[in-house]
Amino acid sequence: MSDRARIAVCQTEPVLLDLAANVAATAAVVRDCVGRGADVIVLPELATCGYMFETVEEARAAAVGLDHEVFRVWRAALGSGDGVLVAGFAEAGADGRLYNSAVVLDRTGIRTVYRKTHLWHREKRFFTPGDLPPAVVETPHGRIGVLICYDLEFPEMPRTLALAGADLVAAPTNWSRAEIRTGSEPPQILMARAAARASHVYVAACDRRGVERGQEFTGGSVIIDPEGWPLATPTSDHIALADVTLPTARTRTLTPLNDLFTDRRPTLYTL
Amino acid sequence: MSDRARIAVCQTEPVLLDLAANVAATAAVVRDCVGRGADVIVLPELATCGYMFETVEEARAAAVGLDHEVFRVWRAALGSGDGVLVAGFAEAGADGRLYNSAVVLDRTGIRTVYRKTHLWHREKRFFTPGDLPPAVVETPHGRIGVLICYDLEFPEMPRTLALAGADLVAAPTNWSRAEIRTGSEPPQILMARAAARASHVYVAACDRRGVERGQEFTGGSVIIDPEGWPLATPTSDHIALADVTLPTARTRTLTPLNDLFTDRRPTLYTL
Repeated sequence: MSDRARIAVCQTEPVLLDLAANVAATAAVVRDCVGRGADVIVLPELATCGYMFETVEEARAAAVGLDHEVFRVWRAALGSGDGVLVAGFAEAGADGRLYNSAVVLDRTGIRTVYRKTHLWHREKRFFTPGDLPPAVVETPHGRIGVLICYDLEFPEMPRTLALAGADLVAAPTNWSRAEIRTGSEPPQILMARAAARASHVYVAACDRRGVERGQEFTGGSVIIDPEGWPLATPTSDHIALADVTLPTARTRTLTPLNDLFTDRRPTLYTL
Repeated sequence: MSDRARIAVCQTEPVLLDLAANVAATAAVVRDCVGRGADVIVLPELATCGYMFETVEEARAAAVGLDHEVFRVWRAALGSGDGVLVAGFAEAGADGRLYNSAVVLDRTGIRTVYRKTHLWHREKRFFTPGDLPPAVVETPHGRIGVLICYDLEFPEMPRTLALAGADLVAAPTNWSRAEIRTGSEPPQILMARAAARASHVYVAACDRRGVERGQEFTGGSVIIDPEGWPLATPTSDHIALADVTLPTARTRTLTPLNDLFTDRRPTLYTL
């Protein structure tokens, strides 16, 4: 296992319903990140199609099956190295349903697909919630777990990933712009930072930017260390990079007498 | 049920091992808060005795049984109204063990005692961890749940209280001063704010101030609303006050299609 991994989150601005444009743009940014030495690249939720569908027909037209060309294009953009891509897309399930999904992909192809299990607002009109726990994928850089956006508001979700061995929670998001009452930090970042600290895991939240049919997005992408501190946010190129050693997340010793996981008291907790 | 409740957190500076001084000082601050209209008053963890014991003998000398005078004094300080006090103390259990406990007290006497279930560092030398889930007490102001300090670092704990019906998580703490790498917010406040937002509950964290045997405390007391925003921190008198309607926490509608609790997917979560 290599020591340092370069994490890249790419805060793209998807074009609503324009799959071809989004495939081209995301492939370009993935190639760019690979060229800059990125080992783990995260794209936003629904990076292939945008967010603000008005009808089920629009959502269906935007959705792709796992045999779609986009996955071959992304795989090609990763090249022949050890790069891993986590990217959100609208999935046309083999069961005829639509899912708000994220793929984990490397040069060998699709490693896993996670279907968002907590759907936000109008997503419920278009998507079926996933019914499987979030996935953890072993990679040469460390173990990557995947959540999507509103999932992060449920502390049980990053906890479940961390207990399953994730070193990094990769979270494609489309954070609707929310009121900030104190300080400058959007509330979604508060939850992402708390998730990192609660389970001593890295978090790479890849938000989108822009406005779509009147909906403003936060552009709040952030890479967070296992103590909950932000390591990087996007620069003017809308990319955030951080070099980290993901397996260091596994050491959960807080004091000579405290380990964050063995200190847990599951028999006292309510699900 | 009255509408508005005035919450007071009193960031006292306990005198190590001086029970008489601490009883007198805490009774005075409780009377002061009652005079200022407080309905729910929170004191720090181990408010009766301080924190930095060096020996088990010191801890034992500092511990009190539930028949100790301090509870009568606090009850008297509350007067004849509907005031509720949540306060940390070192408990000499009837089983001969010592616990890091918090009492919920009103004019009728002791309503419940919660024994800290996640012990931090050297506390493990002196105290036995509690083996019961955190308690929720029905009061005229709303339902109050109790946690102590390090408990808050485990998101399952405030979640368990909220699922048990708590409107307010009252958290006596002794937050050891921690490094702040970005912004100005101690990491313990991050966790308290995330706990509030994750379960849409009020949080009243009552920290202590001062330095004891070289240990600096954060003085990070804060009252937090159910969206995770700080409502009040201590003023120059070391007291923070906020007027809130606790049962509003029970409405967890986020959008016409989202309820924070019914959106949960417990079958997908790992304990």
